Amino acid sequence: MHVIADICIVPMGVGASVSTYVTAAYGILAEAGLNARLHAYGTNVEGPYEDVMAALRRCHEALHDAGAPRLSTTIRLGTRVDKPQTMADKIRAVDEAAL
Amino acid sequence: MHVIADICIVPMGVGASVSTYVTAAYGILAEAGLNARLHAYGTNVEGPYEDVMAALRRCHEALHDAGAPRLSTTIRLGTRVDKPQTMADKIRAVDEAAL
Amino acid sequence: MHVIADICIVPMGVGASVSTYVTAAYGILAEAGLNARLHAYGTNVEGPYEDVMAALRRCHEALHDAGAPRLSTTIRLGTRVDKPQTMADKIRAVDEAAL
Amino acid sequence: MHVIADICIVPMGVGASVSTYVTAAYGILAEAGLNARLHAYGTNVEGPYEDVMAALRRCHEALHDAGAPRLSTTIRLGTRVDKPQTMADKIRAVDEAAL
Repeated sequence: MHVIADICIVPMGVGASVSTYVTAAYGILAEAGLNARLHAYGTNVEGPYEDVMAALRRCHEALHDAGAPRLSTTIRLGTRVDKPQTMADKIRAVDEAAL
Repeated sequence: MHVIADICIVPMGVGASVSTYVTAAYGILAEAGLNARLHAYGTNVEGPYEDVMAALRRCHEALHDAGAPRLSTTIRLGTRVDKPQTMADKIRAVDEAAL
Repeated sequence: MHVIADICIVPMGVGASVSTYVTAAYGILAEAGLNARLHAYGTNVEGPYEDVMAALRRCHEALHDAGAPRLSTTIRLGTRVDKPQTMADKIRAVDEAAL
Repeated sequence: MHVIADICIVPMGVGASVSTYVTAAYGILAEAGLNARLHAYGTNVEGPYEDVMAALRRCHEALHDAGAPRLSTTIRLGTRVDKPQTMADKIRAVDEAAL
């Protein structure tokens, strides 16, 4: 099952500035081969469902190990069976519709 | 890794009324032994990370099989390592703080 | 515009236990007349769009005033124009589909 | 109250391909002066709370007018009072932490 997902991990119980945690999580997602793209409120990833969820688990484990006592993550998760679609396809479809 | 999650699966490309899909997904989550609690905009579940993610995968597969060409799911996912916590604990903490 | 929403406010930069903040936010939503229903990972509310968004703003202001330097909130927001629907209708539709 | 938000509007009850709706919503957010940045699963915006919420309302109204009987939107909404922060600051902080 191919998925396109958007992941935002929020560390709680640490300071208000969390960029070191976000950077660590982004690195894990990118190294998992998930075509990770950071934006200002999360990270787009795509790949097999199991790979995405295994990488997300590693993010939680790594951020807890790095000192975050609590994490609250939000995920958007899209699957479709009518046609194949990549993250780049989604952006391109909007660009073309905007013409 | 114990997680408390909140899952909302939105079927796309079918009619505007989706209660049969929501019901099927809720049944899968409940039968997975995840202490599923339906609310008006999603379902609370708790359990081991792998069990939650395996059940969510079955929901996507079942709803696609039932005719939904596309699904857009949102998940809130909480983990903590400072103390054990259940869904009931979270509700109770607010009830007690409100006294 | 009538909306059904689900709101989860996550305080950052404070301790890992945030029930006093959650309780304060829930109180504001309930006192706004939004039929607020707490669950284990957020609060369901319903009402006019402006009322919901005004109450949510008051929540952010109150939690910052209470000491949270940063807040990360997630909102699910549903509107429909094909038929009127309440939070209770959504739950009932699933109950009936489950028969 | 300055906010950084991430908005994903999901049209229901129309076809599985929704790029025309996404494009219309993106246009409304961009024209509202909110520094809108599209990504593969939503749009980053920033600006005053009231401006963001007024633009989001116009998106819902426009998409209903365009034929979508139902919309399910998810929003991440961040505010902080410890220091000013823009969307560009958030990206830059991760870039710098990655060095």
